[in-house]
Amino acid sequence: MAHDVTLFSGRANPALAADIARHLGVRPGRCTIDRFPDGESSVRLDEAVCGREVVLVQPTAPPVNDHLVELLALADACRRGVARRITAVIPYYGYARSDKRHNELEPIMGRVVADLLQSVGISHVVTMDLHTPQIEGFFRAPVDSLSAMESLCAAMRPRLPHDFVVVAPDAGRAVLAARYAQCLGAEVVVLHKRRTEDRVETVRVVGDVAGRSCLLIDDMISTGGTLAQAVAVLLGKGAKPDIVIAATHGLFIGPARERLDLPAIGAIFVTDTIAPTQRDWPKLHIVSVAPVFAHAVKRYVEATTGDRSLS
Amino acid sequence: MAHDVTLFSGRANPALAADIARHLGVRPGRCTIDRFPDGESSVRLDEAVCGREVVLVQPTAPPVNDHLVELLALADACRRGVARRITAVIPYYGYARSDKRHNELEPIMGRVVADLLQSVGISHVVTMDLHTPQIEGFFRAPVDSLSAMESLCAAMRPRLPHDFVVVAPDAGRAVLAARYAQCLGAEVVVLHKRRTEDRVETVRVVGDVAGRSCLLIDDMISTGGTLAQAVAVLLGKGAKPDIVIAATHGLFIGPARERLDLPAIGAIFVTDTIAPTQRDWPKLHIVSVAPVFAHAVKRYVEATTGDRSLS
Amino acid sequence: MAHDVTLFSGRANPALAADIARHLGVRPGRCTIDRFPDGESSVRLDEAVCGREVVLVQPTAPPVNDHLVELLALADACRRGVARRITAVIPYYGYARSDKRHNELEPIMGRVVADLLQSVGISHVVTMDLHTPQIEGFFRAPVDSLSAMESLCAAMRPRLPHDFVVVAPDAGRAVLAARYAQCLGAEVVVLHKRRTEDRVETVRVVGDVAGRSCLLIDDMISTGGTLAQAVAVLLGKGAKPDIVIAATHGLFIGPARERLDLPAIGAIFVTDTIAPTQRDWPKLHIVSVAPVFAHAVKRYVEATTGDRSLS
Amino acid sequence: MAHDVTLFSGRANPALAADIARHLGVRPGRCTIDRFPDGESSVRLDEAVCGREVVLVQPTAPPVNDHLVELLALADACRRGVARRITAVIPYYGYARSDKRHNELEPIMGRVVADLLQSVGISHVVTMDLHTPQIEGFFRAPVDSLSAMESLCAAMRPRLPHDFVVVAPDAGRAVLAARYAQCLGAEVVVLHKRRTEDRVETVRVVGDVAGRSCLLIDDMISTGGTLAQAVAVLLGKGAKPDIVIAATHGLFIGPARERLDLPAIGAIFVTDTIAPTQRDWPKLHIVSVAPVFAHAVKRYVEATTGDRSLS
Amino acid sequence: MAHDVTLFSGRANPALAADIARHLGVRPGRCTIDRFPDGESSVRLDEAVCGREVVLVQPTAPPVNDHLVELLALADACRRGVARRITAVIPYYGYARSDKRHNELEPIMGRVVADLLQSVGISHVVTMDLHTPQIEGFFRAPVDSLSAMESLCAAMRPRLPHDFVVVAPDAGRAVLAARYAQCLGAEVVVLHKRRTEDRVETVRVVGDVAGRSCLLIDDMISTGGTLAQAVAVLLGKGAKPDIVIAATHGLFIGPARERLDLPAIGAIFVTDTIAPTQRDWPKLHIVSVAPVFAHAVKRYVEATTGDRSLS
Amino acid sequence: MAHDVTLFSGRANPALAADIARHLGVRPGRCTIDRFPDGESSVRLDEAVCGREVVLVQPTAPPVNDHLVELLALADACRRGVARRITAVIPYYGYARSDKRHNELEPIMGRVVADLLQSVGISHVVTMDLHTPQIEGFFRAPVDSLSAMESLCAAMRPRLPHDFVVVAPDAGRAVLAARYAQCLGAEVVVLHKRRTEDRVETVRVVGDVAGRSCLLIDDMISTGGTLAQAVAVLLGKGAKPDIVIAATHGLFIGPARERLDLPAIGAIFVTDTIAPTQRDWPKLHIVSVAPVFAHAVKRYVEATTGDRSLS
Repeated sequence: MAHDVTLFSGRANPALAADIARHLGVRPGRCTIDRFPDGESSVRLDEAVCGREVVLVQPTAPPVNDHLVELLALADACRRGVARRITAVIPYYGYARSDKRHNELEPIMGRVVADLLQSVGISHVVTMDLHTPQIEGFFRAPVDSLSAMESLCAAMRPRLPHDFVVVAPDAGRAVLAARYAQCLGAEVVVLHKRRTEDRVETVRVVGDVAGRSCLLIDDMISTGGTLAQAVAVLLGKGAKPDIVIAATHGLFIGPARERLDLPAIGAIFVTDTIAPTQRDWPKLHIVSVAPVFAHAVKRYVEATTGDRSLS
Repeated sequence: MAHDVTLFSGRANPALAADIARHLGVRPGRCTIDRFPDGESSVRLDEAVCGREVVLVQPTAPPVNDHLVELLALADACRRGVARRITAVIPYYGYARSDKRHNELEPIMGRVVADLLQSVGISHVVTMDLHTPQIEGFFRAPVDSLSAMESLCAAMRPRLPHDFVVVAPDAGRAVLAARYAQCLGAEVVVLHKRRTEDRVETVRVVGDVAGRSCLLIDDMISTGGTLAQAVAVLLGKGAKPDIVIAATHGLFIGPARERLDLPAIGAIFVTDTIAPTQRDWPKLHIVSVAPVFAHAVKRYVEATTGDRSLS
Repeated sequence: MAHDVTLFSGRANPALAADIARHLGVRPGRCTIDRFPDGESSVRLDEAVCGREVVLVQPTAPPVNDHLVELLALADACRRGVARRITAVIPYYGYARSDKRHNELEPIMGRVVADLLQSVGISHVVTMDLHTPQIEGFFRAPVDSLSAMESLCAAMRPRLPHDFVVVAPDAGRAVLAARYAQCLGAEVVVLHKRRTEDRVETVRVVGDVAGRSCLLIDDMISTGGTLAQAVAVLLGKGAKPDIVIAATHGLFIGPARERLDLPAIGAIFVTDTIAPTQRDWPKLHIVSVAPVFAHAVKRYVEATTGDRSLS
Repeated sequence: MAHDVTLFSGRANPALAADIARHLGVRPGRCTIDRFPDGESSVRLDEAVCGREVVLVQPTAPPVNDHLVELLALADACRRGVARRITAVIPYYGYARSDKRHNELEPIMGRVVADLLQSVGISHVVTMDLHTPQIEGFFRAPVDSLSAMESLCAAMRPRLPHDFVVVAPDAGRAVLAARYAQCLGAEVVVLHKRRTEDRVETVRVVGDVAGRSCLLIDDMISTGGTLAQAVAVLLGKGAKPDIVIAATHGLFIGPARERLDLPAIGAIFVTDTIAPTQRDWPKLHIVSVAPVFAHAVKRYVEATTGDRSLS
Repeated sequence: MAHDVTLFSGRANPALAADIARHLGVRPGRCTIDRFPDGESSVRLDEAVCGREVVLVQPTAPPVNDHLVELLALADACRRGVARRITAVIPYYGYARSDKRHNELEPIMGRVVADLLQSVGISHVVTMDLHTPQIEGFFRAPVDSLSAMESLCAAMRPRLPHDFVVVAPDAGRAVLAARYAQCLGAEVVVLHKRRTEDRVETVRVVGDVAGRSCLLIDDMISTGGTLAQAVAVLLGKGAKPDIVIAATHGLFIGPARERLDLPAIGAIFVTDTIAPTQRDWPKLHIVSVAPVFAHAVKRYVEATTGDRSLS
Repeated sequence: MAHDVTLFSGRANPALAADIARHLGVRPGRCTIDRFPDGESSVRLDEAVCGREVVLVQPTAPPVNDHLVELLALADACRRGVARRITAVIPYYGYARSDKRHNELEPIMGRVVADLLQSVGISHVVTMDLHTPQIEGFFRAPVDSLSAMESLCAAMRPRLPHDFVVVAPDAGRAVLAARYAQCLGAEVVVLHKRRTEDRVETVRVVGDVAGRSCLLIDDMISTGGTLAQAVAVLLGKGAKPDIVIAATHGLFIGPARERLDLPAIGAIFVTDTIAPTQRDWPKLHIVSVAPVFAHAVKRYVEATTGDRSLS
């Protein structure tokens, strides 16, 4: 058992936090998190943190603003309680898609969030499969960006046919597709959108999918729109109607399940970075990344505290 | 018309923002504010702010976290769009009651919010009747804390009986009650809570209310619990069943209307710092503070830009 | 004996610092503090602080500016000497009454002082009975605000008559009076000032004092003006001429003793947060808060250093 | 002529700075930049900047460290000379490829450089075709990231055959290729590297190039290695030996010219963000982006100073 | 008359502030500065500063801590009153001799003061003859360090004999002596202290003074000890008993006048950076530097505001 | 062997770093430092630093910009790798001569460098014989400024004649000369430059050198120009042609050796703060300061980590 570490969970994914704590061999810290009747986040730690190494586990998943403010409140309570250091484990980093401006009149929310987290004294962030890896540079604080790819590949391998291609649903995912292809020993296909002169958007397929199985990858599944469109395009180009989808973060917003509950989609693999909401969906496979996070936290805590007692 | 000022409204109270803009004689800036399907706030300015004096109007009223993040997003868009300076008009400052720690294990959210606002480049805040005036000192940036008291008193005077006392619903409001009493030429009564040895909470009345009318004041009406309790105590002590309630901020959360829709309450006065939700309630009087804010912004803008064209 | 802690005292209250050190079982650190002939503060540590947990004890009592700069000098010496962390024990926090602006043309010195303290590397503040508890939020650093109320109540109890009321000398002290009343099981009376139309200031008494004993409380006794005025008002309303006064901080500036050396005042209780100057005054009772500070520092140091050797 | 703007050029690309100044109608500011015998950068402004809007033009091209420090020295001189604001026009942003960590043991130099620039008071950056657009988020200050694509496309159009594909030399450039394809109305092909089990690196071609002309695009041409490899792969897949290469930044380090001076490469288009070193190379076409920068600076200066006198 | 500038004076040298204001053609701003009975500095501006260029004049002369805190209070009042920019004219910079550590256990108060001044929003400092010019680098903000040497030399020239040497009273003043010597066309002599083996301190004279007149220079006259010692040494080496002393800052602490009121000292020249206290001393000549400060402020204000109306 | 310390060397003086490591009894950390073909610095640590006390050794000697950026890159890698603390040992601090502005139009590079070093997380600096000791105050972080004087004196003593004077080559070195004189028991002579009316620069000699041996001291030997000029002047005044030169930092830029390889110069003593380039020069004596640095680092590490295992 670790003497120096206290791990608190926000309300976004307590099951994952409990799993990480169990893998670390630490008892989760007691705290009371609630909302006042007017919706303000209410946080109270129920045990002292003075001088302790604190780990906060909170994916900033929907409702993202509430979960974000809750995390800030937790961190401020720990800072004012004189925690030695505060590490935030943010398995899913919300607002990551707002990582640049499309014109001069937008915010960069990914950077705003980084500044907010640091303004309350978080000095280390552990996260997974950021929408773009450059978000790490939005922080002055060290960011450990873990990958779910190996866990997902290990889980998918038994399910994948011999001859399949890895498909990037748009050009921005081409690098991720190449990494999956390298890991799984497959070819890459890239879809990309293009507007015709009369501004109709069409999806082009770069590479050959006729008669082949497809592993469609993405970093997250939100409303499922892009992926459903990709599936339609792939089928239109003659892909086998046994498509597998893999993504790290399974948000499944609104019509997502309906859009992806197609016969041509054989299986969907996501991780538990976000508290699963679709456990009753047979084709959905949820891969736990708690061991990956626990390993990273353990390594960090052991190194910074000299405490070798973590299980 | 002012050439240098652009005023944007968040979604918390666009009617108030429009009123302030009209009083200033400026056209509200165009911007598109929305939520993505996953709940992330989405902001896009629809006109350039480069070199302009920007005023953002957004009470951080419920849903407070969403309105807060929306304000941060607006400010970041303006900052990255090279606005000259960004003033935030925050008629109601959410999280103001979290202004100190009750034990060592809580955050001070009022300070956290101040840090967040400043981290995105807001360099001036205009607000009204902060829960405690010391919150001004949570900011490095200048804070103009306006008062609704004169507007409320002017609106209430015709309604108040000759012989009434101003009642503070708890000891923390005694200073506010004294200020109302000074403004209206009345006596003060202070309620305060006390726990007996067996931990039953009772409300004590300091001062005499028997046979007198009461003006019960507070800075805000949230769920109405404290005020309803005060009314019951006052009536129990023989106060006339014609109580008037006045508060700057009318949140009216959950059971508030039900709790306060009592025959013994003759009238309730609040301002429009928060977008009114109970317009159909006859005993509720809503006093506009748009002129108060417009006056403060105008004075500031004229002084800093030399622009005398504001109406 | 604690191996990791060095406690230095400024010149404001070395007796209290020595008491705290004795309670902690640590030897006070050696340093030479003086003024150059031109009045500049001169500080030199006489033992190394590299890697040590440093505690500086200095109430910013009068002469406040000199004691404040002396504290900043001590902290800078420790910071440049590579102290691990610097905790400032500031039993009395000067400039606390400048905690908001009364108009737009004043400083908020309570916040300025907070910024100064943090600018030289003080990362933790331990103080007592701040004029308003919100001053805690002026700091980014953790602030432990201790209370002298229990110590004072314990000392006063034998002296208090059976039937007494707790009197707040103005509306701003109503909350403090309610806390004392709760602690001692008594009723509350609130005084508040009001200006008549011809601008004469009168003091109103909210609650009943006729024929009763009064415990007049405040956070500090400065020149004694407000308290002397309160005594006169209470006596005018028929209070028993056996008034007890209690306050945490006993400054006793200028005419304070003369003003309060009245037959109707039976006893005055203060603590030793400020170096006592009126030890020869029979009715003045000085209650030591050294154990309270020692307890807080000990708990903090043990938690942050793992050192359990403090007595 | 603009009264408020002073534009200084570092020594990295004075010709571009002069062109931008001419497009703006301003006289370049006089300054003396040199190296001391020991290699320290030496900067002295030869005209006052007090109260002026300063624009510094300096691509951080090789020798990158010297050009970077020179820019910092210029900015510090302007800051201490009380310039109103300092805008850095950095046509080529060095260290942009160090935008994330490949393992936990590297710096993120793109972020370090952003911090350095801001530490000397640069409050606005204008740059072009950042290696990844997210670098914008490394800055707290506004970053205008301009694009050379339209200028390059305009220059290339007469040279391009009817039937050509846009080729991304690796998966990371797929988005850029898609943007060029959209602009020019062409198809996309993506190359990506893959290591076989015995760790031999091979380049895969996603899409069809047999018998087609290729426009190979990239953000920069450094040593030419990646592009030369791509050309070989394309020819091996049957591409027409009339390949056109386009990139914003032409560094042409070491063997670059030798590697790319192939008969199968018909033309190379770059801009003048970096001072051209290969003007004698017939197949190299250098497109000036001075008008693009001048336009952006003009718009900014006009908006922030109200000065409409820029030509 | 200047429309944009407001100049406030602290209480350290109002006569100098009035002179500077008169030279600038601006009316001094009205403010009320006082001490509370407990010694806390009390500042209230009596006119608005919103949007104005503020100049604060306050040498941090003895009592240095009070004058320093008073300056901080003035600046905070201006900052919170939304002044456009705050320039501090600090004719004498207290704590300048604490500019390095003599061992590892001292503060560097010159840097602490720089941090304090900047923490309250002072963004520009104008000062004179800093004890060491490197103190400029203690600030991030621009520092204009003016020189009184030309004013002093102009005043002294009629008084100086034909054949005189400039004497540095210790090795640290050798550079200053060389500058005076250059300005006045004279030779240099340097005194320096040395401890013998039995730790007796002796003063060595480097250069020849026998039969010559001496101009003894320093940056300040504090208690006069060093200068009186230098005079004795010079006379012992045969210098003519008609020594002239010149220094920018005349503090004249404690025994200074007594020590320097020697027959062998013919005249003493200082400036009015510090409010003169010895106006009745015939051999003391006070040279006004108000024109030098007014010139610097005027140039700065004109450049930053475009206001050419300063007289 | 120390368990907690990792020492990395940049490429400026790996021999000195190895010596320091050997004196400390620690194994130098493994890292790969290189330049990309385009000249960008490339750094990769080859062992983890998480939780470790890191010491970086890098004099910012020529090529100063490259060595400086390399040091920043090393520090950022350590910071992002979650080092506990980063100490930079900078035996020679480049840009130290840019420690003030000579007019209003220059940077203060010594301060810029201090800001850069701190912006990447360096929290402690150990350096030697700064050009001016006030540079310590450019840092917020603690700076230990060691002295090579004792090491140099110890090495020189056997070589120095009985009757010699210590000569400062200009007035700015008078304090240093006095310190050497104190250490060695000798007299001081000061040279200083003066321009005649027709602007010819002449060097004046303050003190007597006729027939005496001279020890000419300086903090560094750069191009040797000032020292060669001083030697000529001394010889012209009749000094014995057996001059010894001592300086901490031996840069020996360009013509330095040629200028100083004079028969009248008997010996030159420097330290190894800068990697020696003239080992084949018989009259050059290089004194190692590795023990001085090792001693300072050891004391610091022991105190901050409690680790007493350093040899």
